[in-house]
Amino acid sequence: MDTEQLTQKILDGDRRALARAITLVESGRKDHRAKAGELLSELAKHKRQSLRIGLSGTPGVGKSTFIESFGMMLTGLGLRVAVLAVDPSSARSGGSILGDKTRMERLSRDKNAFIRPSPSQSHLGGVARRSREAVALCEAAGFDVVLIETVGVGQSETVVAEMSDLFLLLLAPAGGDELQGVKRGIMEMADLILVNKADGPLKPVATRTCADYAGALRLLRKRPQDPEGFPKALMVSAVEEHGLDKAWEEMQALAAWRRENGHWERRRADQACYWFDQEVRQALLARLETPDAKAQMAELAGTVASGGKSPGEAAQIMLQALGAA
Amino acid sequence: MDTEQLTQKILDGDRRALARAITLVESGRKDHRAKAGELLSELAKHKRQSLRIGLSGTPGVGKSTFIESFGMMLTGLGLRVAVLAVDPSSARSGGSILGDKTRMERLSRDKNAFIRPSPSQSHLGGVARRSREAVALCEAAGFDVVLIETVGVGQSETVVAEMSDLFLLLLAPAGGDELQGVKRGIMEMADLILVNKADGPLKPVATRTCADYAGALRLLRKRPQDPEGFPKALMVSAVEEHGLDKAWEEMQALAAWRRENGHWERRRADQACYWFDQEVRQALLARLETPDAKAQMAELAGTVASGGKSPGEAAQIMLQALGAA
Repeated sequence: MDTEQLTQKILDGDRRALARAITLVESGRKDHRAKAGELLSELAKHKRQSLRIGLSGTPGVGKSTFIESFGMMLTGLGLRVAVLAVDPSSARSGGSILGDKTRMERLSRDKNAFIRPSPSQSHLGGVARRSREAVALCEAAGFDVVLIETVGVGQSETVVAEMSDLFLLLLAPAGGDELQGVKRGIMEMADLILVNKADGPLKPVATRTCADYAGALRLLRKRPQDPEGFPKALMVSAVEEHGLDKAWEEMQALAAWRRENGHWERRRADQACYWFDQEVRQALLARLETPDAKAQMAELAGTVASGGKSPGEAAQIMLQALGAA
Repeated sequence: MDTEQLTQKILDGDRRALARAITLVESGRKDHRAKAGELLSELAKHKRQSLRIGLSGTPGVGKSTFIESFGMMLTGLGLRVAVLAVDPSSARSGGSILGDKTRMERLSRDKNAFIRPSPSQSHLGGVARRSREAVALCEAAGFDVVLIETVGVGQSETVVAEMSDLFLLLLAPAGGDELQGVKRGIMEMADLILVNKADGPLKPVATRTCADYAGALRLLRKRPQDPEGFPKALMVSAVEEHGLDKAWEEMQALAAWRRENGHWERRRADQACYWFDQEVRQALLARLETPDAKAQMAELAGTVASGGKSPGEAAQIMLQALGAA
């Protein structure tokens, strides 16, 4: 299929063409990269936009159940929903809930939903670009909502936040000192904190957890992109499908406010600049990603850790080896 | 003075030699860099260690008063104290409290204290290396405590935390929703949060602020390098010199625990590896720091922001211009 045909089919919302195009952007082959670039340029001309919702939550918080329930609610409202995963560590096995479509059985059969697991790449930079391009393809294919989920390994939350219009943090109820730790910076990225499992015997715990996080959110610096009262902490039950409508209402209110106040477009422009900068930097740093360079960096790091060389001396050796000193 | 003489004088604790050596490591001249490298290698053989205390706090929290009172208390205990600043933005004017020694009048006259303002460099990478080397010189000169302060511009807190054994965050009392925002990730870096100005009419507010931050700290993930009860939030009054002894007690307890449990040495080794890695990366990215490259990056970013080019297309153009595509 040539680029023109593929472009048209994607614009028509053809799911198989979309899946094929995502496979194309995920490919490392040079001719595939060239074709992917062409395709993305063509599609960009149509300037279609979805609501991009980033979602982070560690394993065990009920993320797949949440995506299933929330996604079904959205398709029930007549919306088309795409679900993508950014998961640099686990490839297709293990960590990523989306590696296992059977856990989102209803949603994966819904004709208004499209689910795509994370590309199997261990390098976060590569995953980021491929995911960003997959999001652009879903937007061009006319999805109303693109949900981008991550298990939050390393910097993957930042990656997802930088390609989302709204960023949700899903947490489980936890009591007192057992409160699950919130990773560096993630609270400040969140637009909504959703405390899941607010059902059955966990409900009182969820209520307290939610109040705790609401308090913690108030301690964070006010962000210009937030109207009064945001970021918020809410309770939901993905299993009982409670609170999902309220959460969706808040997301829409926030998105509408940001659109009206210029923050939506500004954020998208800032994100595009961020990715431009990242791509340049990653390309310059790619010399450190070869097996040889990695081995030498590891060896020198060992010498530095044991005090055999200073950081500066070791850096000089490495840069000489790279021909960059 | 040749390197051998300078080495000996620094080891003898000669303040003028120390000041001269810091000027040497701050220099960008190639022959100075070579001599600085030699000097640092020589001094490293003696393996002298200080307690390195990082301190962050925005202007207005009373940081200079705190450093003065805390420093005077330490010299009163017979300890030798060096104070360094990491402040990439302001050079010698404005932001940095240490730019104005008169604000630490007593401490700057104390023969057991050594105060050095931030090097005037706008590039954080450069400031980081020079500061790290200045810390090493102070350690070699036999200071018991090296206080490294930053106003917390951009990534400067990370820079300071990565060269400190303990990291303190100094905050001012603030009521309710006016609570000053805590920047991304900084709470997670802090070993102690000190709420200053716990005196006079602000005391009740300070008490509540301290409790709020103690609560927020409990929400963070437990770190392996912390004994039970850390990180802590404490109240101090730098003006009335209250709570400084208690804060020092906590710092010593934490440092002792980390030494006994292997975290001290591991952290120093990790920090050395971090700086090795950073130096290599910064050198590879240095091509983006020339005026020409900066101008072209800015121009392309403008095109990306307005939607004229995709991030990937713009990155390709930039990399070609750098001869790195």
